[in-house]
Amino acid sequence: MVGKIVALITDFGYKSPFVGIMKGVIKTTAPESEIIDITHNISEYSIQEAAFVLAHSYSYFPKNTVFVTVVDPGVGSNRKIVLLKTEKYYFIAPDNGILSWTIKKEKVKKIISVTNNKYFFQPVSNTFHGRDIFAPIAGHIINGIDINNFGPEISKIYKISFPEIIKINNVFQGQVLYIDKFGNVITNFTEDKFRQVLKNGLFELRIKNKKLDRIQTSYSGIEPSKPCLIWGSFGYLEIALREDSIARLYRINVEDKIIIRMK
Amino acid sequence: MVGKIVALITDFGYKSPFVGIMKGVIKTTAPESEIIDITHNISEYSIQEAAFVLAHSYSYFPKNTVFVTVVDPGVGSNRKIVLLKTEKYYFIAPDNGILSWTIKKEKVKKIISVTNNKYFFQPVSNTFHGRDIFAPIAGHIINGIDINNFGPEISKIYKISFPEIIKINNVFQGQVLYIDKFGNVITNFTEDKFRQVLKNGLFELRIKNKKLDRIQTSYSGIEPSKPCLIWGSFGYLEIALREDSIARLYRINVEDKIIIRMK
Amino acid sequence: MVGKIVALITDFGYKSPFVGIMKGVIKTTAPESEIIDITHNISEYSIQEAAFVLAHSYSYFPKNTVFVTVVDPGVGSNRKIVLLKTEKYYFIAPDNGILSWTIKKEKVKKIISVTNNKYFFQPVSNTFHGRDIFAPIAGHIINGIDINNFGPEISKIYKISFPEIIKINNVFQGQVLYIDKFGNVITNFTEDKFRQVLKNGLFELRIKNKKLDRIQTSYSGIEPSKPCLIWGSFGYLEIALREDSIARLYRINVEDKIIIRMK
Repeated sequence: MVGKIVALITDFGYKSPFVGIMKGVIKTTAPESEIIDITHNISEYSIQEAAFVLAHSYSYFPKNTVFVTVVDPGVGSNRKIVLLKTEKYYFIAPDNGILSWTIKKEKVKKIISVTNNKYFFQPVSNTFHGRDIFAPIAGHIINGIDINNFGPEISKIYKISFPEIIKINNVFQGQVLYIDKFGNVITNFTEDKFRQVLKNGLFELRIKNKKLDRIQTSYSGIEPSKPCLIWGSFGYLEIALREDSIARLYRINVEDKIIIRMK
Repeated sequence: MVGKIVALITDFGYKSPFVGIMKGVIKTTAPESEIIDITHNISEYSIQEAAFVLAHSYSYFPKNTVFVTVVDPGVGSNRKIVLLKTEKYYFIAPDNGILSWTIKKEKVKKIISVTNNKYFFQPVSNTFHGRDIFAPIAGHIINGIDINNFGPEISKIYKISFPEIIKINNVFQGQVLYIDKFGNVITNFTEDKFRQVLKNGLFELRIKNKKLDRIQTSYSGIEPSKPCLIWGSFGYLEIALREDSIARLYRINVEDKIIIRMK
Repeated sequence: MVGKIVALITDFGYKSPFVGIMKGVIKTTAPESEIIDITHNISEYSIQEAAFVLAHSYSYFPKNTVFVTVVDPGVGSNRKIVLLKTEKYYFIAPDNGILSWTIKKEKVKKIISVTNNKYFFQPVSNTFHGRDIFAPIAGHIINGIDINNFGPEISKIYKISFPEIIKINNVFQGQVLYIDKFGNVITNFTEDKFRQVLKNGLFELRIKNKKLDRIQTSYSGIEPSKPCLIWGSFGYLEIALREDSIARLYRINVEDKIIIRMK
């Protein structure tokens, strides 16, 4: 049983026709498919950002959605292309770590190394596998082709590590995971682990010489131009300004260090 | 009788996966829905711009389209969420004024305050009602759920005023309503009220110390690098340059004052 | 026999609601249509760029796709609107040269000058034919209306010339055709004509005082921060940097001169 939806994440942007071409190939292969853009503005070549965006988007989609994530600095090299079949979904990506944080949350049924060029768009280029491999494979999945046809089963994918919190005595060291469109800073302090910790004790969070010690419940409750903390919609502690970009104001970047000291 | 189209307007941009996540929720709720983006680049937090864009886009869509407009600085506060049912359409939005200029043009059938969390995506966050409330409600409307289920009927929505023209003797004072993608400046002088006025008399329009006195019939008829006036496609007097951005060149912003003096 | 897909190329961007409005009109006219964005970020008023993007995208789409390309500085003037029917596709565009490079590759069946305002959205503006003419005509084609209804057959379209390579003795002079989203520089040296030439001989390519003499097979094989050549996915010789924008670094623009000297 397959679905109809192909969901796309790339760093191809909205200027060049790369995404449009992929959609043409998907619709040519699978006329019944429906294509949904998650984003095409992943920071160029950023595997971490693509991994974050995929891991925090996919679960909102219908069963059997085929996710195609193409951030692929290794295109044309000998990096593999993998198809991950989980209980609910299909994920196709270059085997460069993009699936690392998704695979941890999913019940894996099978991993295929996609190698069978019978299912590729011919001739296969060395620079645009989105068009020549990812798009037609997504279409063939929608068409119900048995995924075992695409290549041999393999037992693991290439993984990048998730930046974990380090605890030393009463100090937690974390970092910036992602900066969203509004300039909100998403940290790697997860709500499920840290909500209780930060609720029960006094604490001080430091980032870039700024100190924060209070968690708000909504953006609109924040005092104007005062940085504050909030449990965000991705499930992490966020640093935010009311109607402004804290990332721009304090020049905060992904991987910047965050310290929480319990008092 | 319902339609299949959900049309989206947000300030969520094209970088973060917020819009993609909303689409996932809509398609999960209503597999038959078709989603169309109007724009996701509303200037951040600009209720006026969202109100303008919605009011000048919706009428081109098929009957029963469900419009979801999310520019929502008050998310998580006690601002209401409203569902406006008119003779032809459904409009869902935070009750912050976004619907003000649309409701004036539409025949209102019913207004619902959306409160019934049975129809929301659980758990409801305080920061992303686009995902947790707006998207699933849109899906349920497409599915044909009776809108009376979503909450109590109310009699009015929160409104922001449309900037009207002030007339003092032979002088009209207006302002900039919107600046489009090409840098054309849309004023609040409407074609239906002012076409005759400006056709019959000599006049001089002033904006930022520039004077204009002639209305052209097409961009291509404009002399290169000479600012000019034109009746634009939104139904207002526009100030334009041929193949260039007059807004950038003269640093014109929304709400800048415009004076027309009849001679 | 018609298809369901309408594919769009414009310079309307993603901020103003122009594209959304066109989609509303297309769906109102043809409820069964499916709309795919190729890009809306063509550089403003650039007919050349639109011609390039269309010519290198269309062939990946299903048979009977209707391509609507609107980059239209002459809107409201007496420039024609043309509908090109080829063996596989329909192309609608202002008659300003946009179709020049596509028509060379296609088997033309018929060209119609679109004039019959019975099929237009009324009243027709002088500034937004995307909404008033292009969108409804696309919808009517999807609906199976005989294209002879739209206006008289004509025998030719307006053409802009493709920048050809000039050869003087052992020197080829070309130019930059297009710069893609990643800053890769697409030249007008085509793979089918020049692959053999450059494979068999030693050569030196010059652009902006930079010299290059080696063609790589993939981006990932390129030495970091060293400019190099590659046969790109559009079928042309490209100048690229590994994970960086060579166009930005060396300030390369479309139409910049490129010299290849055979040794």
